[in-house]
Amino acid sequence: MQRSERFIRLTKWLVDRPNVPLSLSELSSRLNTAKSSLSEDMARIRAVLEAEGEGTVTSLHGMAGGVKYQAGVSRARREAFCADMVRRLSDPSRILPGGFLYMSDLLGDPDVLDTVGQLFASRFENVGVNVVVTVETKGITLAAATARYLHVPLAIVRREQRVTEGAALGIHYISGSERRIQTMSLSKRAMPASARAVIVDDFMRAGATAKAVENLLSEFSAEVAGTAVFTATAEPARKLVSDYTALFELGAIAEGQPVDVRVDRAWFEPDVHPASAAVEPPNAVDHSKNV
Amino acid sequence: MQRSERFIRLTKWLVDRPNVPLSLSELSSRLNTAKSSLSEDMARIRAVLEAEGEGTVTSLHGMAGGVKYQAGVSRARREAFCADMVRRLSDPSRILPGGFLYMSDLLGDPDVLDTVGQLFASRFENVGVNVVVTVETKGITLAAATARYLHVPLAIVRREQRVTEGAALGIHYISGSERRIQTMSLSKRAMPASARAVIVDDFMRAGATAKAVENLLSEFSAEVAGTAVFTATAEPARKLVSDYTALFELGAIAEGQPVDVRVDRAWFEPDVHPASAAVEPPNAVDHSKNV
Repeated sequence: MQRSERFIRLTKWLVDRPNVPLSLSELSSRLNTAKSSLSEDMARIRAVLEAEGEGTVTSLHGMAGGVKYQAGVSRARREAFCADMVRRLSDPSRILPGGFLYMSDLLGDPDVLDTVGQLFASRFENVGVNVVVTVETKGITLAAATARYLHVPLAIVRREQRVTEGAALGIHYISGSERRIQTMSLSKRAMPASARAVIVDDFMRAGATAKAVENLLSEFSAEVAGTAVFTATAEPARKLVSDYTALFELGAIAEGQPVDVRVDRAWFEPDVHPASAAVEPPNAVDHSKNV
Repeated sequence: MQRSERFIRLTKWLVDRPNVPLSLSELSSRLNTAKSSLSEDMARIRAVLEAEGEGTVTSLHGMAGGVKYQAGVSRARREAFCADMVRRLSDPSRILPGGFLYMSDLLGDPDVLDTVGQLFASRFENVGVNVVVTVETKGITLAAATARYLHVPLAIVRREQRVTEGAALGIHYISGSERRIQTMSLSKRAMPASARAVIVDDFMRAGATAKAVENLLSEFSAEVAGTAVFTATAEPARKLVSDYTALFELGAIAEGQPVDVRVDRAWFEPDVHPASAAVEPPNAVDHSKNV
């Protein structure tokens, strides 16, 4: 097989399946190529991805020896993404009565989901997470994207116990905003046996929901590796959970006023896969001009 | 830039963003490569993907001239996926009291989601869909995966109107199984102006929910290009919606009995991107052995 063909196949197989370990022996037999050539190819792919700042190929030392692709977002792409999100989130037309911010368009935008999934996964991919947990409904798309890039299952906490979830563990908690008793439950089968979870959600105010999920997970004897949210309000500054990370911090939300949106700078350092001589990925063609 | 490096970059850029049009002019300047060489590279990538039966690269004729990647699932991978799903779905331990089938593990499995997303997207990618619509909660992960591969936004119909969704259009309908009046509503902002939707859900019995979504979408003057569900019961054979496709058909669900699960053969013909001299992607390494 020609080397160009190997590069195309290998790159596709890797990028198609983030965090999935692939055996070098199996790749070698599928491509009818010596393991030594394959290792050279992999080194080349890794170098190109790292130069672009867009992920890497990790070697796995084990019985078989293998590799896996870990996605990454280059610094330039993070900057552009964050600037775009700040612009869109701060738009006063998003403000709904009661001081809520309309975000469902962003939470249903495939580019936003993919980028956030890659960012959240980069943060948690090396801490042994084996499940992503979210609470229905709005956080599900972000959590599913994160689970894709971590390559772990997604478990969805339900507000009401459902017959289709089978036996479930439920708890009561006091919601932050409404100060009333609420319930949440999680299917027993949805959780791995020795679970180490990352909690993903779209929004955090006081953190009552995240705290309740932590409590629910402790009933499963699950560890919580951390909580990642898309947006969190600046106030109250002290949340009910200590170990959380938010991509965007929202200032006061008042009708007619632009929302003050800040990017958590922690997302820009440390630069996990520093870019050198980066070649940025191309922009999408503007459909309106092209079709 | 070396040709091998171009192949790695181009393959990654394409595979990372299914159905996103990329301009040849921009690629040419990013890679500092003549458009003619780039066209040759693209032809090579297309040939390799098509030989593998795993998608293609489509040329876009427009002002700028461009390309986009469309994902595909090779026949062998479809066969393996369907056999695995039939095995897992027919397991009697999934049967819950009341004749329900536990599926949340599959609906949270990143490999299942990715494959179903690719299959559903292949079915609808050339019929001008500009939004994927689902109903909370269980269908959301499948719908998000489909939206990723179609590269269109996802709109989630809510069971109750929520303050965070802004102005919403709501309807009442009679649920199939419980014979009672239910509500569903969809945020006005969540839908594109001239919407052409594909409805995605995890399960269909009589089709009352899908029919209700169709009615709701007609209130938005949206067209429905079709409905795709992961599973549908064989009975009742006559559903309330006519234009739907199910990946798996479920026979009678009775406690302790294996469920009769059938694959809709329509998913195997016509073979959109027929494989010749296919090289199948490698299997993932079994973690339990390797780590």
